[in-house]
Amino acid sequence: MKKSLVALAILGASAGFAQAQSSVVIYGTVDAGMIKRTDQSLAIGKRANNTLGFKGVEDIGSGLKALFQLEIRYEPDSGTIEQGANGVQRPLFQGQSRVGLQGAFGMVRLGRGLTAFQESSTQFEPFHGVPSPAGFQTDLMVAGYTSDPLGSVGNSTNRFNNALFYNSNVYNGFQINATVGTKEASTGSAAIVGRGSLANPQYRAGSEASANPYSVSATYTGAAGSLMLAAERNAVESRLLSIAGYVMATPELKLMATRVQQDRGHTLFNSEEARSWVVGANYKMGQGKILAGYGQKNQGALNQGMQKTKQMSIGYEYSLSPRTYVYADASNKKGPTIPSSMNIYALGVNHAF
Amino acid sequence: MKKSLVALAILGASAGFAQAQSSVVIYGTVDAGMIKRTDQSLAIGKRANNTLGFKGVEDIGSGLKALFQLEIRYEPDSGTIEQGANGVQRPLFQGQSRVGLQGAFGMVRLGRGLTAFQESSTQFEPFHGVPSPAGFQTDLMVAGYTSDPLGSVGNSTNRFNNALFYNSNVYNGFQINATVGTKEASTGSAAIVGRGSLANPQYRAGSEASANPYSVSATYTGAAGSLMLAAERNAVESRLLSIAGYVMATPELKLMATRVQQDRGHTLFNSEEARSWVVGANYKMGQGKILAGYGQKNQGALNQGMQKTKQMSIGYEYSLSPRTYVYADASNKKGPTIPSSMNIYALGVNHAF
Amino acid sequence: MKKSLVALAILGASAGFAQAQSSVVIYGTVDAGMIKRTDQSLAIGKRANNTLGFKGVEDIGSGLKALFQLEIRYEPDSGTIEQGANGVQRPLFQGQSRVGLQGAFGMVRLGRGLTAFQESSTQFEPFHGVPSPAGFQTDLMVAGYTSDPLGSVGNSTNRFNNALFYNSNVYNGFQINATVGTKEASTGSAAIVGRGSLANPQYRAGSEASANPYSVSATYTGAAGSLMLAAERNAVESRLLSIAGYVMATPELKLMATRVQQDRGHTLFNSEEARSWVVGANYKMGQGKILAGYGQKNQGALNQGMQKTKQMSIGYEYSLSPRTYVYADASNKKGPTIPSSMNIYALGVNHAF
Repeated sequence: MKKSLVALAILGASAGFAQAQSSVVIYGTVDAGMIKRTDQSLAIGKRANNTLGFKGVEDIGSGLKALFQLEIRYEPDSGTIEQGANGVQRPLFQGQSRVGLQGAFGMVRLGRGLTAFQESSTQFEPFHGVPSPAGFQTDLMVAGYTSDPLGSVGNSTNRFNNALFYNSNVYNGFQINATVGTKEASTGSAAIVGRGSLANPQYRAGSEASANPYSVSATYTGAAGSLMLAAERNAVESRLLSIAGYVMATPELKLMATRVQQDRGHTLFNSEEARSWVVGANYKMGQGKILAGYGQKNQGALNQGMQKTKQMSIGYEYSLSPRTYVYADASNKKGPTIPSSMNIYALGVNHAF
Repeated sequence: MKKSLVALAILGASAGFAQAQSSVVIYGTVDAGMIKRTDQSLAIGKRANNTLGFKGVEDIGSGLKALFQLEIRYEPDSGTIEQGANGVQRPLFQGQSRVGLQGAFGMVRLGRGLTAFQESSTQFEPFHGVPSPAGFQTDLMVAGYTSDPLGSVGNSTNRFNNALFYNSNVYNGFQINATVGTKEASTGSAAIVGRGSLANPQYRAGSEASANPYSVSATYTGAAGSLMLAAERNAVESRLLSIAGYVMATPELKLMATRVQQDRGHTLFNSEEARSWVVGANYKMGQGKILAGYGQKNQGALNQGMQKTKQMSIGYEYSLSPRTYVYADASNKKGPTIPSSMNIYALGVNHAF
Repeated sequence: MKKSLVALAILGASAGFAQAQSSVVIYGTVDAGMIKRTDQSLAIGKRANNTLGFKGVEDIGSGLKALFQLEIRYEPDSGTIEQGANGVQRPLFQGQSRVGLQGAFGMVRLGRGLTAFQESSTQFEPFHGVPSPAGFQTDLMVAGYTSDPLGSVGNSTNRFNNALFYNSNVYNGFQINATVGTKEASTGSAAIVGRGSLANPQYRAGSEASANPYSVSATYTGAAGSLMLAAERNAVESRLLSIAGYVMATPELKLMATRVQQDRGHTLFNSEEARSWVVGANYKMGQGKILAGYGQKNQGALNQGMQKTKQMSIGYEYSLSPRTYVYADASNKKGPTIPSSMNIYALGVNHAF
């Protein structure tokens, strides 16, 4: 049967490529720039995520489509897979790995990807969700919340593994999105002391979730703007609520605001609270775009003092082509867990392919 | 020469793509579903292997072809590279990485891939060789045999690294396949105590093979069915013999049976034996297919009691399109090394691209 | 917005593929052979680098181009990502990960890649820069120099991470190339005792560079041949100087010579010197090509004895097609740090796609 395997391989070479043409799309981004942070030396790094993706859609008739998407994430300055804290390598397909069906009922997918809340919220962030510390996405936009506290060390903080993803179709501008994860334990997850002790942590290393993680978002999008309501609960039962919206003040001017509230009472005493808000604006000028935002995060025990983080950022993007732009950012962040005042400057190029 | 490099890059962009069209095929599978195992909570997992592959065939004239194949394996529920025991990541190209020539002499390839026996045997397995525990491939079909005992921890159990692969062409339905590995040591291989002691194991960590691993299979395939004879010896000189066959009782009904015998006497006292047999059937009904199988594995010392493992599985596949099907499996497995009786239920989707 | 995301995905499926056709080139190499080294058993290995790459060029008008290149490196005999010393896995995009712009000013790129010297020098190496120990590239061609001494353990020895790469256009055969790295520390870098002590090494694990690494090369290429002058300084301030050239004695015969000098005085006492020279020839005969070279490396303290390494290699390549050739090499290397005399024989196939 090897021969037949080879025959298949050869047929596959044509059949397969026919498929490639009809179904496999290769896409991605390379974003690299020079970054200067107050407490660090000049570095080459990224502003946006760097991706190399493979996706496809198959029309299987009667209004049904099968679809898949596999998205590699990497660090262009070192050529490695995307790295989390302490240089821990993240999954190869850190971006997402999902397969599903789409039809009149909406879209159902299985695998790993952004939660409903995390995926919905980026459009309300003034730096359109880039992970750069000059943006707000990874901290203030989510009040320091993590979607995957029991994931492997260094893993993503805004995705669910082992999840089912549902997205309704859009009816008159309304859409519902829901993500539900299993309680499955992750290899290499760290212990969480929480309300336990070092000797007896609330969540041991490799623990299962104590409740199914879920995330829901509801959005309305019209000509004038968009509104989002979202709620999420992670594997250690931290709860997040968010309301966000944007308005198109003029065709060039987008104004946006987000409010997020996190309740970590399940793992912290005194019902530990975290709250944040971000306001921002995008203004288009020909091939240029100005990005500006300001936000605050408060965390602590309500009956005690709350610690405050403040961030102000401004950026400029200039499009050299539909797929390539250069950018310059300046940002200041003040807070308890970082240099009392940290400035970040970035200058780089972003190329989509 | 950078300029010329760039010139090349630009030419390459066209020439290269011309190549891509003529030679590089991107293919793969995404298989994800919900799995419930007696002793585990509901999980998202896979039934079949998940692959992202790159392959090509070049006609180099006078009946000769050059061919290559690189096959990534991954876990869609977590986005990681395929993982072995304890979440150890397997090689990036776990599926295979081979290059070779094909002609009147047959096909010769170098690299890493399934052994002759492992690749030939899957067509006689009632769940067409899927790694799901609801199938028989990874345990009963091979009597618990592993092709790569001295490979890196977590590595594949049915492949040879550092091997030469030969496949004859098919003459009147007959074909011979052979795989021979070098004695090369693998980085990160574990010690095997075998007939030694913990202090002085028979194979130290990072040992070379004590004899060249080899695998041979001979098959005859006709209109009515197919027959296979195979033999394999791994790096620690465990020996495997297998006979398998299927008959097409009707165009819709495929009946199959396999018998495997393993001799681990080189590393275990009392000439440790392992024997297994699997019978199964596939029945096509329109876009649907029923998969059913039953098998037993006996292992131990012949002059003492043999331990018995029994497995019974039934599955159903429904094709939504030539490239997409949904499946439902139910399986029961009884044995010494697992929950005395383990049930597995799976429900999912498989999409080829 | 998921719907719109899907809409995008579907548009993306066509738009994206339009891009794939216009911008994403998939290319690579599979090189595998049998290698016998005096002190090792017969092995399957590689002679040239094994790559799977993705690259693209976008014409953005007014003479400007945006370009990117991502290059996976792997080991075909085991299917793993390319491995460094002790099987440590290198970055996924070990080959390179760069993005940049090209125009009348030349080409500017950011990311990770070969330094100006390392990329320029390969054309003067008789085995056109293959990493095989039968070639001279990785040792004698660079006098044992490493471009990335503070990189993660097992990382490349001839690349800069976190660097800016400039290449001028070619004016009347002249070209200037320059690479400058940041002082950024790498995760997982080992300590370098240098002029310190084990207790207080000159460079602690995870150290930043003590000076910005840089590499410059200037080349002149005409019909009769080419000449190169290059200088490099790495993160621990080792300095390298090189002069190299080749002449086309006849259209079939290329004669080449290289001289390299390395000063490691910053980390070693007695101004530790390393010097090497390599001479070689390539001779084309129809579809065949003979490769021959001889070189010496001297290292030590000038005021003490210098240790000598000598290498002599001969190889033959036979092209089966424009993209596929078979090769046979024989090499002898004598030196202090290896079996006093080591022979290497290699026989294999190289396929480009």
